[in-house]
Order: sequence, then C-alpha cells, then structure tokens
Amino acid sequence: MSQDLTIGEIRLTPVLTADPPLLNTQGVHQPYTPRLIVEAVTAGGITGVGETYGDTAYLRLAAPLAVALPGHRVSDVNGLHDLAARVCGPAPESAVSSSVDASGLRGVRTAEKLRLSVVSAFEVALLDAFGKALGLPVHALLGGKVRDAVEYSGYLFYRWARHPDGAGEDDGWEAALDPAGIVAQARRLAREHGFRSFKLKGGVFPPGEETAAVRALAEAFPGRPLRLDPNGAWTVETSLRVADEIGGLLEYLEDPAGTVDRMARVAAATEVPLATNMCVTTFAEIPEAFARRAVRVVLSDHHYWGGPRNTRELAAICRIHGVGLSMHSNTHLGISLAAMNQVAAVVPNLDHACDTHYPWQTEDVITERLAFDGGSLTVSDRPGLGVELDRERLAALHRRWLADDGALRDRDDARAMRRADPGWRTQPVPRW
Amino acid sequence: MSQDLTIGEIRLTPVLTADPPLLNTQGVHQPYTPRLIVEAVTAGGITGVGETYGDTAYLRLAAPLAVALPGHRVSDVNGLHDLAARVCGPAPESAVSSSVDASGLRGVRTAEKLRLSVVSAFEVALLDAFGKALGLPVHALLGGKVRDAVEYSGYLFYRWARHPDGAGEDDGWEAALDPAGIVAQARRLAREHGFRSFKLKGGVFPPGEETAAVRALAEAFPGRPLRLDPNGAWTVETSLRVADEIGGLLEYLEDPAGTVDRMARVAAATEVPLATNMCVTTFAEIPEAFARRAVRVVLSDHHYWGGPRNTRELAAICRIHGVGLSMHSNTHLGISLAAMNQVAAVVPNLDHACDTHYPWQTEDVITERLAFDGGSLTVSDRPGLGVELDRERLAALHRRWLADDGALRDRDDARAMRRADPGWRTQPVPRW
Ligand SMILES: [Mg+2]
Ligand SMILES: [Mg+2]
Repeated sequence: MSQDLTIGEIRLTPVLTADPPLLNTQGVHQPYTPRLIVEAVTAGGITGVGETYGDTAYLRLAAPLAVALPGHRVSDVNGLHDLAARVCGPAPESAVSSSVDASGLRGVRTAEKLRLSVVSAFEVALLDAFGKALGLPVHALLGGKVRDAVEYSGYLFYRWARHPDGAGEDDGWEAALDPAGIVAQARRLAREHGFRSFKLKGGVFPPGEETAAVRALAEAFPGRPLRLDPNGAWTVETSLRVADEIGGLLEYLEDPAGTVDRMARVAAATEVPLATNMCVTTFAEIPEAFARRAVRVVLSDHHYWGGPRNTRELAAICRIHGVGLSMHSNTHLGISLAAMNQVAAVVPNLDHACDTHYPWQTEDVITERLAFDGGSLTVSDRPGLGVELDRERLAALHRRWLADDGALRDRDDARAMRRADPGWRTQPVPRW
Repeated sequence: MSQDLTIGEIRLTPVLTADPPLLNTQGVHQPYTPRLIVEAVTAGGITGVGETYGDTAYLRLAAPLAVALPGHRVSDVNGLHDLAARVCGPAPESAVSSSVDASGLRGVRTAEKLRLSVVSAFEVALLDAFGKALGLPVHALLGGKVRDAVEYSGYLFYRWARHPDGAGEDDGWEAALDPAGIVAQARRLAREHGFRSFKLKGGVFPPGEETAAVRALAEAFPGRPLRLDPNGAWTVETSLRVADEIGGLLEYLEDPAGTVDRMARVAAATEVPLATNMCVTTFAEIPEAFARRAVRVVLSDHHYWGGPRNTRELAAICRIHGVGLSMHSNTHLGISLAAMNQVAAVVPNLDHACDTHYPWQTEDVITERLAFDGGSLTVSDRPGLGVELDRERLAALHRRWLADDGALRDRDDARAMRRADPGWRTQPVPRW
C-alpha cells in the first residue's frame, strides 16, 4: 500500500443543469436544476467524485464539511458521517419540514435527512477515490457485485415540448399530455434505451386520465411491469378506486396517498402492492410504517438515505422485514447514476427495476455518458465509479450557476409552473 | 493495484483447544473444545485467517466451500455468501434444531445458522487477506473504526479447579462455587485484565445462590455494571422474582427465560432491561421479538450471525428499532477475538462492553496473544486483523484433534458433566 489515502482537498462545484419541462402534481421542472459536484483529492493526487442535490440549503451544509474533511482518510466512511454530524451545523429553517407536505415530493425534509443527502455525495467521492487508489471498483469496496448489470425502468412523464417562453434547452421530445402521448414517449424510450418496464409520474391530471394512460400502456406493452406514482396526490378513497380499476395492470402503486397513515389504510384494503419514496425516507419512519404494513416496497435513494453505507443497511432492514426494495431517482447526472449502479450491484434484495431520470438529462459532467443496454446498465469494473469528470462541461455548468440571479438555485416546481400559469398555487395534498 | 486478489487455496484446520471446567445450566465445558481455523491464500501469496466453531457439523459444511472458493476474489464477500448457500449442502440432521432447546445455549440451530457460522470464518479470512494485500486494517474495509479501543466485560463462571479425573490442562485457577469464589475470581480477572464490568454465567445453581453472588459482586465492586445470564433456565415467574430482587444491581438480565414468548412476558412486567443471545440469534427471529419488545439488548456474535457484513446489518436493524447492542462470546481464540474487535470498532451503536471467554483460553494459534488493557482491547491498525498464525501451535492443536477418538470433536457439556456425575441428564428448560 504505497498510496497515501489522506484527503488533501475537497472541491465543491454547484452547477445548473438542463432539465426538461416534466410535470408533477406540484408543478413543472425548472429549465435548469441545481446539483452539487463534490471532488475529494487525496494527498497522493487521486480525485474521487460525488454528486447530490444542489439547492442552497445543501450547499450551506456542504461547505463546513469540505473544510473539516482534509486530513481524514478516504476509507473512513464512518468517520465522515460522525464528522458531518458535528460540523455541518443546522440546516436553514426554511429548508426543514417534518411533514410530507405539499412540496415534499421526496418525503419529509428533516435536518438530518438534508445532512445525509450532503454526506452521500462526500461518501461517494471518498469511495471513488479509494477505489481509484486501489485499482478496485467501488462495488469491491462494498462486498462485491452480485449482478453484472442493473435493470432500470423507463420513467414516463406528462410534459410539454418546451419550457414557458422557450426557456432552457430543447431536448427534442414532443409534448405528452394524454394516453397517446405517454405511449409514444414509452415507445421512444424503449427504442432508444431498451427499457422493459415503465413508471408513469402521475398526480398531474385527474385520476381517470392517468388510469387511461396506464391502460393504454398495458395495451401497447402487454405483460410489461407498469407503475403509477401520483406523489401522494390522492385520498384513501381515490387510491382504492384506482387500485380497484387498474391494480391488475400494476407491478406496484407508488405513493398514491401521502402519509403512513393513509398508505396503511389503503394497504389494508387492497392486494395491490404499495411502494414509497415519500412516507418512508428516513430510518426513523421505518418502525411504524413496517409495523402497520403501510408499504410493500421501499424505493431507496442513496442521496437522501445517506450514501452507499446507509443504503445497504436499509436493504438489510427491508429484507428481514419482508419488504421489497427498489430505487428512486431524481434529476441525477452520470456521477450519481454510476454511484447508484454500484450500490444496486451489491444489494442482494433488489426486487424491482430501478427508476432513472437519466434519459431526460441532456447535459452531464462526465466525459462519457452512461448507456443503457436493454434497459440495463452494466456494472463497471473499472477503478472507483468508473467515470471521469469532464472539467470543461463542469466549468460551463458552474458558470451557468454563477450567472443565475438566484431564481433557479433552489428548485421550485410551483414557481416554475407560475411562468405558464400565474394563478398556480401549491396544491393541497391530497388533491383528488 | 499490483496484488492478485484471486483466492488460490483454502486450508481448513480443525483443532482441539484447552478449555477449563466452566459450568453452565447444561453441564460443564469439555477439557478440550473443537475450533476450526480457515486460511485463505491469494494467488499473490497473501494468507488470511478466520476461526469458527469446529464441531463436525461445521467441518462438514466448510469442506465443500473450501473446494469451491478458489478462483473467487478476496473482496467478494457477497459472492462468498451466495456460493456457500449453493455449495455447502444441508447440515447434518442431528445438528439442526429449530427450537431453543436444552442444548441450545446459543439459540436455535437452523441449517442456515450453521452455514452462516461457517461462512463467517471464511469472510474473516478473506477480509484479513484483502487487508494484508492492501496494507489496510480490516476496519478500514468496513468503513473505518469509530473507536480506538473496545471495552470488554469480565466473564465470571462457576467452575471447578480441575476437570474430572484430572483431564485437560491445569489453568491455575481456583474453584468458584459460591459468592466468595465468584468475587475472588472477579478480583483476579480485574487485576489481570482491568475489566470494569462483570457478567456471571448463571443457571448453574438455584436462583437464590446466584442472586447472592450478584449481591456479593455489587458489594465488592460498587457501581460497576453487572449482568447475570442463566441461559434461559428460569420460568417467567422466577425471572420476575430475580428481576425484582436484584434488578437494581444489573446493567441487564440476560436470557432469564428461554423463548421470545417467555422473554416478552418477563419484559412486559419489569423495568430491568433484558438481553439475549438465545431467543434472537437469526434475522428471521427479529420481527416478532422486536414487535413484542421481548428484548432491549441483542448480543451479536459475528460467528452465528454470519460474519462482519451481517453483524453490521444487525447493528443497523437494532439501531433503527431502538434496541441496544452488545456482543456475545464463546470459546474464541485470538483470531476470532481480533475479528470481533475489528467489527466492534466499526459499529456505531455498541452500547455495552462485549463478552469474552478469552481469559479462560490458555492456548492459542497466534504468535502474540492479545492483551486487555483496562478491560479494553486496542483496535489494531496493522494490515488485516493484525494477528499472525503460529503454525507450530496450530499443528500441535491439530494433532490433538487428529488423535481424538471422536469423544471431544463435538462439544457436549452434558456428556462432559457425566464424567463427574454419571446420573446427569439434559436439564429441562426452564429448570427453575
Ligand atoms: Mg415516487
Ligand atoms: Mg448468553
């Protein structure tokens, strides 16, 4: 072991990256969305990279950790978590919410969860550097891959063709606002990436329109696993009506209702499996949710669960409680997708194809975009994550962040929606 | 990464190692007890070592795994578990028991648990070799130590001075068969190793004699954490009476009653924390036991929980359920103690001093015995486990195993007791 594994420097680079006008129950994606790129440089000169949410609350928490970390070793993942708990300081009040409220498409926003989302990017950067220093893939540092490829699901969105006022980048996709549009989108995603299952982001239109879209998908792709995710937009009654109407077509119904209590009541009255990335997004929520059998599948996310270490622990907890595991995705770039793929590779009980936004991201900060083959992503055996930072692209996306007046630095789908519909307000949960 | 991490060879060496006449509710330790030493040799010539139970059932399961493993990589812990599940074959019927029965001082003996106990030694050997190849301690491969030393508890036993007929080795300890004997034993253990807390193995004498011993310890060591473990020998009523009488002196009461149901009934009626290494020794037992709040502390054991990986998962599960964690020990030699110490070093929620039989083992297979300092064991930062095999000692203890006619190759405390008391039979559970 000649490598010096001591961390010499941490570099934080916030970026704004293009995001298409994807609709959800609370609004529409902004033309550009903030992400944070973390680089960990060892004293031996090896650079590891990580990625997470880039809103200002995350940047605020990341800054002191970046200052405190040099001198620690890239192998010291446990110490990283302890250090973060000591130095990150409190999350900004405005960013914290203990309920799965209207803006909580990703569940509660506790101070700890915000911190864990930041730590996750540091942990990934450390593991990437550790792996590169040793000449080993990250999965080998996590006990070794149990699969050679990870399957992903085609992520369907109601969307416009362009952002209001022609803002943002043109990604070359048509609008999709009805069953025919969703089926056309699914066909193109399947053609270009080979996805064999599909998830529709719902909660955008009244439930009847969305169940019609699911029926159309089932007709166009007979026998393929389908999922519908209205992000908690429905009442218990609506959830049960949808489950009754199209449950037979669904692999699972994702977050039909927005709280553990409502999910438990839905679960008690239907055989359709319920999945969540909203009502169980922290370890603290598990005991009650599992005891009440509110969900049959947890969609883990290595960002908000706190990195690869915690994700593996979550997987173990799900396994012993007989709860299925799938993986959630937000607007991730290639670094986070590569990290997700390495983690997914080592989790024995990955029971469903993972979500991914990646086909919707036209920009990236790595030199070679990751490519799905038959809907799957090969598990890289190259050192670290197996990706290389594209410094020119990173600098360009960072310049975009620097040039922004603050309007885009905190993702706000409702604000983005008001550019098209000035009267748009935060939607009540449940909405239907 | 110049090292070739491929496993070239696995060596299995069963040994018989000296064990003093320690008493428990089912009998007495044999003069010699079987252990299995596992060596994993990489293609690059690095040797890693592991240790586990050595009874014939374990040897039977280990043999096919040793044949199948070469060609795999030392980093492939997940693959090791999968491989074991495929190749180990069924455990001998006679070794399997699904209830915590009379001979189940360590809980159920399911086929999976027996296999996991074998896999644990292989996993440790792989991690030791992996660490040595990289020049990193095992804890760095497990996320990094969160403490520099691990605290252990002085493990007190009712015992004779010598085995029946003068068999075995003389370890220079006096008999301890009453409160004064136990206190004297505690004083010497404290003097020689610095232990600051004590656990008394009970279930040997009627409860009143054992509570008297705890009272004597409390008087001799005021304020020190004390534990009593009768291995499930008591009824619910007896357990509650003991809890009522000496609960205030106890850090926790360990396995007073032998099943989840009985433990839950005890727990519901006393404030004294209950601990277990009998009614929760597999992941399958957790959901019911935790839901019924049968135990407040789980004593993990990296052997029967299936190695460092599974032990960390157990720790995570305990943490999110608010259940405490301590660590169990059986007749371990230096390899297993070193492995336990590395695992204990990375588990954040290690809430109590760990058990250790080590002071009772006068023989070992490593070149330099581990030494407690103030009751704690420093976490080694040397490559791998930080211990070296003593091949001469290993060969000598193996020759003893080879010379045995089979009488000692399967540990049987009741059979050993019959050498002193021919009328001794397997004791009913509960006994009092
Ligand atoms: Mg979702
Ligand atoms: Mg015990």
